[in-house]
Amino acid sequence: MITRETLAQRDADDPLAPFRARFRLPDGVIYLDGNSLGPLPVATIERLQTVVAAEWGEDLIRSWNKNDWIGQPQRLGDKIGRLVGAAPGQMVVGDSTSINVYKLLAAALHMRPERRVIVSQRDNFPTDLYMAQGLAAQLGQGHVLRYADPNDVPASLGDDVAVLMLTHVNYRDARMHDMAALTKAAHSCGALVIWDLAHSAGALPVALDTVGADFAVGCGYKFLNGGPGAPAFLYVAHRHQHEVRPVLSGWLGHAAPFDFDSDYVPAAGVKRMLCGTAPVLSMAALEVAVDLMLEADMSLIRDKSLHLTQVFFDLVSQECGNFGFAVTGPRVLEDRGSQVSLSHTEGYPIMQALIARGVIGDFRAPDILRFGLTPLYLRYVDLWDAIQILKEIMTTGAWDAPEFKVRAAVT
Amino acid sequence: MITRETLAQRDADDPLAPFRARFRLPDGVIYLDGNSLGPLPVATIERLQTVVAAEWGEDLIRSWNKNDWIGQPQRLGDKIGRLVGAAPGQMVVGDSTSINVYKLLAAALHMRPERRVIVSQRDNFPTDLYMAQGLAAQLGQGHVLRYADPNDVPASLGDDVAVLMLTHVNYRDARMHDMAALTKAAHSCGALVIWDLAHSAGALPVALDTVGADFAVGCGYKFLNGGPGAPAFLYVAHRHQHEVRPVLSGWLGHAAPFDFDSDYVPAAGVKRMLCGTAPVLSMAALEVAVDLMLEADMSLIRDKSLHLTQVFFDLVSQECGNFGFAVTGPRVLEDRGSQVSLSHTEGYPIMQALIARGVIGDFRAPDILRFGLTPLYLRYVDLWDAIQILKEIMTTGAWDAPEFKVRAAVT
Repeated sequence: MITRETLAQRDADDPLAPFRARFRLPDGVIYLDGNSLGPLPVATIERLQTVVAAEWGEDLIRSWNKNDWIGQPQRLGDKIGRLVGAAPGQMVVGDSTSINVYKLLAAALHMRPERRVIVSQRDNFPTDLYMAQGLAAQLGQGHVLRYADPNDVPASLGDDVAVLMLTHVNYRDARMHDMAALTKAAHSCGALVIWDLAHSAGALPVALDTVGADFAVGCGYKFLNGGPGAPAFLYVAHRHQHEVRPVLSGWLGHAAPFDFDSDYVPAAGVKRMLCGTAPVLSMAALEVAVDLMLEADMSLIRDKSLHLTQVFFDLVSQECGNFGFAVTGPRVLEDRGSQVSLSHTEGYPIMQALIARGVIGDFRAPDILRFGLTPLYLRYVDLWDAIQILKEIMTTGAWDAPEFKVRAAVT
Repeated sequence: MITRETLAQRDADDPLAPFRARFRLPDGVIYLDGNSLGPLPVATIERLQTVVAAEWGEDLIRSWNKNDWIGQPQRLGDKIGRLVGAAPGQMVVGDSTSINVYKLLAAALHMRPERRVIVSQRDNFPTDLYMAQGLAAQLGQGHVLRYADPNDVPASLGDDVAVLMLTHVNYRDARMHDMAALTKAAHSCGALVIWDLAHSAGALPVALDTVGADFAVGCGYKFLNGGPGAPAFLYVAHRHQHEVRPVLSGWLGHAAPFDFDSDYVPAAGVKRMLCGTAPVLSMAALEVAVDLMLEADMSLIRDKSLHLTQVFFDLVSQECGNFGFAVTGPRVLEDRGSQVSLSHTEGYPIMQALIARGVIGDFRAPDILRFGLTPLYLRYVDLWDAIQILKEIMTTGAWDAPEFKVRAAVT
């Protein structure tokens, strides 16, 4: 039997507990949506004031050199690399995850010209699929998207497969793929692999270099806490960098951008995957957040994430067992990322009722209530309090009100 | 004979003079690089604090609806549309100029499948050419880039031309194309036109709808003052919106992004050209700056810009006639954008010496000293003071110092 007191004791023993004070968390809110938009680090406020008032306001154009704005995409890429097991020189930051998926997919297909199949999952995050569909239609060479069974991805591999494109942790049910095993399986049939780390970076240990990953992308605004619409990152393993052809061949990926030549020549290394000018203000916010996360021990983050997951499951069972909620995704903790999802036929209004009471998760069609578990700022008692509010909403039927059934533009 | 006093009188009579106080301009600096990075509007400081501390920090994920972050790319697009003669519903903001060039070029080539030529200029801003080169190589269908004579673009048009891609105002010599005439010429041979407004938006009147433009892109961080790396804009004329195929088909361009379907279906209208999540903080800074510019009368901006240009030329002639400077670009003011460039064999160290004295312009290889003329915050007396410093640097030979010859990463 879990009690609030046993959970308070866990918080008292939590080595990550001091990190909570590094975030601005509003009063009256239990924030379980850090997997969608991470909260504001305290240090970001001052840093952005400096970037705006001093670097832009005072130093103006000189900041490209003086404050090394020009080096930011690579400097920040190397920092994120430390969070996901990538040695320096393989990662850049900029553009969106969608754009970066396209860059890498186009490069990968070009490296496997005789193959026509992209393997992914039907329940991959849609934008990854959409980018693949757009590219395939554009190329007009008969590329097809093949959807693998998430439980048996290798069965979809073969010598017709150019690239395996998977999200490491599923956005809906938190299922985590075995990155090492699937990378190896793909390579054994001659395919390349693109890993989307949107729900992994900052959430759990990733070892891109160790598993022999070819390419990866990921998001700056979820577990990395980089702010709304923060730029995304992109990884190209050293061994492929001489070979990747940037199709989005913008000037900042040029070997000598300030020579202003009329012919594109790709820069050496992963820098060639840069395209246009990155949004400096948004990049600066992301850098603060990444610096903060680098102070934490990723194995402690993972340990706490799994404990939070178990507590959440146990509390749902203990307190809300009779309301029709079903846990989705793997029950083996080690096969999960850092979020939990409950399915319920009335998922949408229930989530709106929770949000109205300050318990912020999100809804994913058709019936998923999704809760992010973010060890840097979430307490065990927060889960207790959240589940008590859920219980009350279900017991009283408070969710069954007209205002909770109006669909918002963004869910 | 121009004197500082005659120029001070012009400032006293200038109807745009009150706008100068709306910008943070550092002491001791004459900023002539607003065509590369516009300065910080005062209102941006507070607005960004609100977006960071309140919208992100307090409202968190709820801001997508509550503070209409989701509507920002279209709302801001419509506002920029007012600056460049585009009726609502034809413009979105997001991604970089380079990415947006690619989106539109890919769409245009798809609309002219039987044609293989892209006409541009060799001295177009390089990234536009690079994006075209990347796309042509990717498609592998024999598309070629044909460079027109800037003085006779129509001579390069013909029934093999899919698209004419020009920058309205040349970044180096300020030459401005006749947008109406060239659009008409392209249409008369069945080609589409992409106008790059990087050096036009916020600098001078543009009438996209009136001239019958097909597509346009432009930059948020130059004359629009949106901040370093501010997102770019993109225009698709109403008549083409049903037909344009987004190849960068990301989820925010989907007809129903929050249905999370696995198949891409383009949104109605220009919204389909959105791709991934836009950088909200950088977008917010841009919106403040655009709102500010919408308060000014664009015809007054143009009038002052031309007067500043004439004064600059006259002062160079009067004060610096013997130092080997040559004015580049058209001498007819009406054929120019809002910047002036001087060529000089020692252009690089001269510009560094100017910057060291607080006169900030920039250098463009091989020999161009470039100065932006930005009517909202530049005074006539600033030109006098800048030219006096240039004169002193040339008279004393102060430019001829080792520290001014070290090439920086960004010039």
